[in-house]
Amino acid sequence: MSVESARDVIRRCRVLAGCSDEPGFTTRTFLSDSMRVVLVKLTTWMSAAGMSVSVDAAGNLRGVYQGASADARRLLIGSHLDTVPHAGAFDGVLGVMIGLALVESLHGTRLPFGIEVIGFSEEEGVRFGVPFIGSRAIVGELDKTLLEARDADGVTVAQAIRKFGMDPSRMADARTDANPIGYLEFHIEQGPVLEAAGRPLAVVDRINGRSSADVTFTGAAGHAGTTPMNTRQDAVAGAAEWIGCVEAHAHGTKGLVATTGRIDAAPGAANVIAGRCRVSLDVRHADDRIRVAAIQRFRVAAEEIGARRRLQVDWLPRLDQSTTEMDPQLVAMLARALEAAGAPKTVMASGAGHDAMVLAPHMPAAMLFIRTPGGISHHPAESVDEGDVAMALAAGTNFLNQLAASIGV
Amino acid sequence: MSVESARDVIRRCRVLAGCSDEPGFTTRTFLSDSMRVVLVKLTTWMSAAGMSVSVDAAGNLRGVYQGASADARRLLIGSHLDTVPHAGAFDGVLGVMIGLALVESLHGTRLPFGIEVIGFSEEEGVRFGVPFIGSRAIVGELDKTLLEARDADGVTVAQAIRKFGMDPSRMADARTDANPIGYLEFHIEQGPVLEAAGRPLAVVDRINGRSSADVTFTGAAGHAGTTPMNTRQDAVAGAAEWIGCVEAHAHGTKGLVATTGRIDAAPGAANVIAGRCRVSLDVRHADDRIRVAAIQRFRVAAEEIGARRRLQVDWLPRLDQSTTEMDPQLVAMLARALEAAGAPKTVMASGAGHDAMVLAPHMPAAMLFIRTPGGISHHPAESVDEGDVAMALAAGTNFLNQLAASIGV
Repeated sequence: MSVESARDVIRRCRVLAGCSDEPGFTTRTFLSDSMRVVLVKLTTWMSAAGMSVSVDAAGNLRGVYQGASADARRLLIGSHLDTVPHAGAFDGVLGVMIGLALVESLHGTRLPFGIEVIGFSEEEGVRFGVPFIGSRAIVGELDKTLLEARDADGVTVAQAIRKFGMDPSRMADARTDANPIGYLEFHIEQGPVLEAAGRPLAVVDRINGRSSADVTFTGAAGHAGTTPMNTRQDAVAGAAEWIGCVEAHAHGTKGLVATTGRIDAAPGAANVIAGRCRVSLDVRHADDRIRVAAIQRFRVAAEEIGARRRLQVDWLPRLDQSTTEMDPQLVAMLARALEAAGAPKTVMASGAGHDAMVLAPHMPAAMLFIRTPGGISHHPAESVDEGDVAMALAAGTNFLNQLAASIGV
Repeated sequence: MSVESARDVIRRCRVLAGCSDEPGFTTRTFLSDSMRVVLVKLTTWMSAAGMSVSVDAAGNLRGVYQGASADARRLLIGSHLDTVPHAGAFDGVLGVMIGLALVESLHGTRLPFGIEVIGFSEEEGVRFGVPFIGSRAIVGELDKTLLEARDADGVTVAQAIRKFGMDPSRMADARTDANPIGYLEFHIEQGPVLEAAGRPLAVVDRINGRSSADVTFTGAAGHAGTTPMNTRQDAVAGAAEWIGCVEAHAHGTKGLVATTGRIDAAPGAANVIAGRCRVSLDVRHADDRIRVAAIQRFRVAAEEIGARRRLQVDWLPRLDQSTTEMDPQLVAMLARALEAAGAPKTVMASGAGHDAMVLAPHMPAAMLFIRTPGGISHHPAESVDEGDVAMALAAGTNFLNQLAASIGV
């Protein structure tokens, strides 16, 4: 592998970033017209690398590079091709481009295993409010309920698939072969940890569990001028106190992150005391017990604040996802590959969810994180360092070599 | 005056509440079609009471009941005819109906002064975002800038006036006669103070000053899962801390009210740390020095929080309105009238702004507050007690008698 390969990878990510549902930005949702353009470009590049390419019933791009024997097991390498609105060029796509570059670097040499590079059609949950549509199909978890989810225009997943030219009744065919060696995902960290530690790469040993909820405080709207402070049931003031509790506890608990990213008040006028205030809560930790305990503590705090302030508290759980462990053997192999590539051994938990989380219960899975300058992601300014990408490619090559050696020819 | 009069007053308020821009609610904005219906009904009622009625260039309804001599000075009695969206039946309208009932109760008897009952066309600031359009016209303060203000459809005040059938170039004619005796406004309290004190009525001796501002905290958006707590620049968390400071200081300062009724965050997603949070601030107190000191303290607190949390703070002042004193002689006369009507002497500051605030710099002005059940106003459930209205009418009659006696026949 060479610096030129890293440059190619980055250039291709930038080319694909130009395929967008929205001019001037990178916004590419599940089965959109711009996704079709991406699939065409990827098919061209993958075919040129000697891969046989297809699009499955969930819209995933599947590029297969055969192993030395026809019945050789496959290593899956993948990430997602969709983006958040106004995204950067690397979230998801980089992992697919690295998979392609690793195949290209073989220059037709056959390994004792095949490689299937997968570009998942959907991970971000933008269009249907449901994430991981692509990877769920790969593991046979894209059920009928999910196929009937509707987007903002009332189109179902099944209809979108049909409109894109596939047959949703063939979804079972999208399922991966019975016995893959494992799944490997290269992905930008999307956070500031590696940069702060001065590390280019990290092996991910687990994907943190996550809970989310919508919390609504309901008091009584009132006139801002005529209602004395001691008779108020101010929903915004109650929510603000609770947000302070949430933040303080997360600060005081190692590895815990808690976020209140969305807040609104009703009626929402400057001269009216808010009668209702709704706040989103997102809590993550590598240890499920710590996450669950935090959620319970936040709920008790909300209820205590509500009781004291005469506010009703409605707690609507949205998600409770356990921590997903990566496969120890693949993690160890990746860690050795990092060191062989000249990167200091770094192991970390992923704070964000990834396709690897969906695949891990079904096959050995591991991830490699690439440093994200400024921790900036989900933003047009998202970037990667060329040297870091070159090192990730070198680690990937070493990983393939280790795997080949362990299987034998 | 009788209980029947009070019943009539309430009935008429309810009839007018049926004149609405929005079916099923009471929403009546400046110069809307429903306002035209109100003007027609009022013209009928006022004419029947022996008043000469006109609509001035600002859309104010002016009903004049002549005094004993043609050149007698006039007492103005009024309040506003417009409403907030989804209003109750009494805010504003009640004061006009009481003025009319007081004239009716004279049964044609002439006093040594004339009475002009004014229904102001605009006080709430809903349509043009600028309040007191009606009363400003009465005191010659409706200038060209204000006439060029635009509503949500891009219509200017001047165009709206023309469309309603008046001539905005005749605005100077709307100005009140040079030398009115004074201005008297009956209005619901819109707060819980009188109810809590067990008092039906209060004389208002001042209208509290008010400051408002939009405060924006700007940090950095980030991934809710991948950004450790100690590297965050969380705008919502900073705003929440500041809201706590504002509330605590207002609680600890007698008579001070501070409200943060509107809050929103950007990008406003559950899984993204908020990069920006905007909060409205509304601060009121009877003593201007305490209000100004509070605003300064809140601003310093925001800047201290911003500096500590690496958030930029933008402070946009919206309004700085001094406390308006009511006329001591009229206040004393009204206080005697309350006692004569059997209401315990009660004097209070108004937390809300009223037309009296606009008129007071130009003529002696006073207000009488009527207890508001539950303190509920700006809401369809807004109500008044019939006995309280009867007492307000009795106090009004006594006030007229005192004024007549002081002027002599």
